[in-house]
Amino acid sequence: MTSRHLTDYEHADAQVRAVYDDIKQTRQVDDVNNFWKCLAAHPATLERTWQSIKQTMAPGALDALTKELIYVAVSVTNNCPYCIASHTAAARRAGMTDEMFGELQAVIGMANETNRLANGYRVPLDEAFKQP
Amino acid sequence: MTSRHLTDYEHADAQVRAVYDDIKQTRQVDDVNNFWKCLAAHPATLERTWQSIKQTMAPGALDALTKELIYVAVSVTNNCPYCIASHTAAARRAGMTDEMFGELQAVIGMANETNRLANGYRVPLDEAFKQP
Amino acid sequence: MTSRHLTDYEHADAQVRAVYDDIKQTRQVDDVNNFWKCLAAHPATLERTWQSIKQTMAPGALDALTKELIYVAVSVTNNCPYCIASHTAAARRAGMTDEMFGELQAVIGMANETNRLANGYRVPLDEAFKQP
Amino acid sequence: MTSRHLTDYEHADAQVRAVYDDIKQTRQVDDVNNFWKCLAAHPATLERTWQSIKQTMAPGALDALTKELIYVAVSVTNNCPYCIASHTAAARRAGMTDEMFGELQAVIGMANETNRLANGYRVPLDEAFKQP
Amino acid sequence: MTSRHLTDYEHADAQVRAVYDDIKQTRQVDDVNNFWKCLAAHPATLERTWQSIKQTMAPGALDALTKELIYVAVSVTNNCPYCIASHTAAARRAGMTDEMFGELQAVIGMANETNRLANGYRVPLDEAFKQP
Amino acid sequence: MTSRHLTDYEHADAQVRAVYDDIKQTRQVDDVNNFWKCLAAHPATLERTWQSIKQTMAPGALDALTKELIYVAVSVTNNCPYCIASHTAAARRAGMTDEMFGELQAVIGMANETNRLANGYRVPLDEAFKQP
Repeated sequence: MTSRHLTDYEHADAQVRAVYDDIKQTRQVDDVNNFWKCLAAHPATLERTWQSIKQTMAPGALDALTKELIYVAVSVTNNCPYCIASHTAAARRAGMTDEMFGELQAVIGMANETNRLANGYRVPLDEAFKQP
Repeated sequence: MTSRHLTDYEHADAQVRAVYDDIKQTRQVDDVNNFWKCLAAHPATLERTWQSIKQTMAPGALDALTKELIYVAVSVTNNCPYCIASHTAAARRAGMTDEMFGELQAVIGMANETNRLANGYRVPLDEAFKQP
Repeated sequence: MTSRHLTDYEHADAQVRAVYDDIKQTRQVDDVNNFWKCLAAHPATLERTWQSIKQTMAPGALDALTKELIYVAVSVTNNCPYCIASHTAAARRAGMTDEMFGELQAVIGMANETNRLANGYRVPLDEAFKQP
Repeated sequence: MTSRHLTDYEHADAQVRAVYDDIKQTRQVDDVNNFWKCLAAHPATLERTWQSIKQTMAPGALDALTKELIYVAVSVTNNCPYCIASHTAAARRAGMTDEMFGELQAVIGMANETNRLANGYRVPLDEAFKQP
Repeated sequence: MTSRHLTDYEHADAQVRAVYDDIKQTRQVDDVNNFWKCLAAHPATLERTWQSIKQTMAPGALDALTKELIYVAVSVTNNCPYCIASHTAAARRAGMTDEMFGELQAVIGMANETNRLANGYRVPLDEAFKQP
Repeated sequence: MTSRHLTDYEHADAQVRAVYDDIKQTRQVDDVNNFWKCLAAHPATLERTWQSIKQTMAPGALDALTKELIYVAVSVTNNCPYCIASHTAAARRAGMTDEMFGELQAVIGMANETNRLANGYRVPLDEAFKQP
């Protein structure tokens, strides 16, 4: 088995199928993404990761679109090609327009620029930002 | 001059003062943060960075709070202590509640986890995510 | 010469050949990987890097498999596709099973998640972790 | 409440106390670290993160020490000061000697160097590392 | 429109064409790179980014070649394949020889190694490096 | 011994002293930095790292100042506070002026911004940048 063996539904055991079924029902999709088919190689990680994602990405104080924008921001900053592709698609499904996409990238870019300016200039923390 | 010399308003020249004045008026604050006082060491960078931030962070298709949440997500992922502190404060001013803060961190954490699972398993891109 | 010219054994000079021979003998392989064939463009870097890798990866207080697992953890965190591929293969040769691979990725994922939770919550260092 | 409010046991509600109790029993310690006291601000994240850590770090195909070494490698690569401090301490408790610590850092350093050499030289993937 | 729609000159509006024209004239090239054709999806970002790049990369206290070497160093450290490719090409156009390229990669590699050794050993800052 | 025990010259053994002496003579300084005093905990890493730094940072096709600027660029991008502090100081000793420092930070900032724009827009590689 290579490190990226994909486990399809028909070859999955009962534990993996239960997770796939929950993903498909929760997201209203016909099949799960390759990400989950790879994780199926270690069922405990598949199940734990799905439960964490399901809980974390459910609408709460932040709506689903905002959460996807945050997800894209992290994935772009880490340069994870798979996650950029899959969560940009998820953000579009959640309602991201072209204009929102453009502003999202602009903010991500500026944050990465000023993060390095703050580091490089070794900016001392303002008193107002210190915590007791 | 050390790399983190702070230029106060009273010691700033006209170009730097003009930027400081614009920051204070735009943000309705009495003084600018240390970040800007450090950048003043290179006035061209001070002016360019402020103009970029002003344009990028203005409410548009995304509101001010959403933009600050994205900014925090990038800063946490890059581990820039100054930016985490200053933009967490900015997000709170823009309306971030404790519950939103908790969900924000949860999404940032999960995105960082799954970014690495996608990398580590070398997940192949789904056909649906490929672009022409 | 492009930045990724590959220097094959037959076109290598004596200094490069000596390194290639040492790699092949140390690792008991018929040919060196593309990584070394690229570094051959700058023989001083080729020789220094190989000597460092040879010294660092030799079994010592940590065995060869543990060292490869650490190498994969760094490469996944940095998202270096070449290094993930080559050191995952090296870890398998050193004895990594599918179950170990699954646990390795799970730990890498959790560490990346909690690193960001620690950053984002700005967790103050416990007294017990401070050093004199 | 600041972003790094620490919730002590005596001020914690029942859900948080249950997690604290489980951490203390599992790790055989008298009190939980600041990391958990910060996460208590968002009980769902506290509980989910602890359950994930408990499952992931339990000895399995990889022993507890190996898992802590991997955790340190990720934390050093991400430069998370809190995580470096706490997991270096955890690794020592799990049996890491001074010699192991020295070799761990040497491998982390070399992996970070060669990750960038592979990136910078744009090394093409060897046929042997490609996956079907 | 996908996230990486490329806007060619003939389909660009007046604002985008003005930027393209300035890039072509400044760099003395016949066409702009895909990077700019992607950014054209959000004209404000296209214009702001080009103005920033034009100002920042112009020869000043540092010459054009030195600036490109710094750009490559950042891009390799972030592992941005597009930026590594395009700025390595730009550095070569600015005069980078094979020997310079080899030394550049060697310094990038060593810096990444020692960054992690400094983190992992938690090296305390020397008095001489502290700032008032 | 804690992870950041500093080995002073008087308590160092012959192998460590030989490295310290070579650093002091090469750099014409009275004492070595804390970085080397930490690495002395693992003499093989101390010696190997110093030899690599000595070889890599010696003036060659790139002069000493250019190499230090590259070192700062990597350290800022990785956010390694110790390395930013020590190599900014080294760059100043090698001749970096305030104006050069300002331009260096500006380039580092812009490179970090455009790295993320390239990632986020998933810019396809231009034919001209592809390698055979």
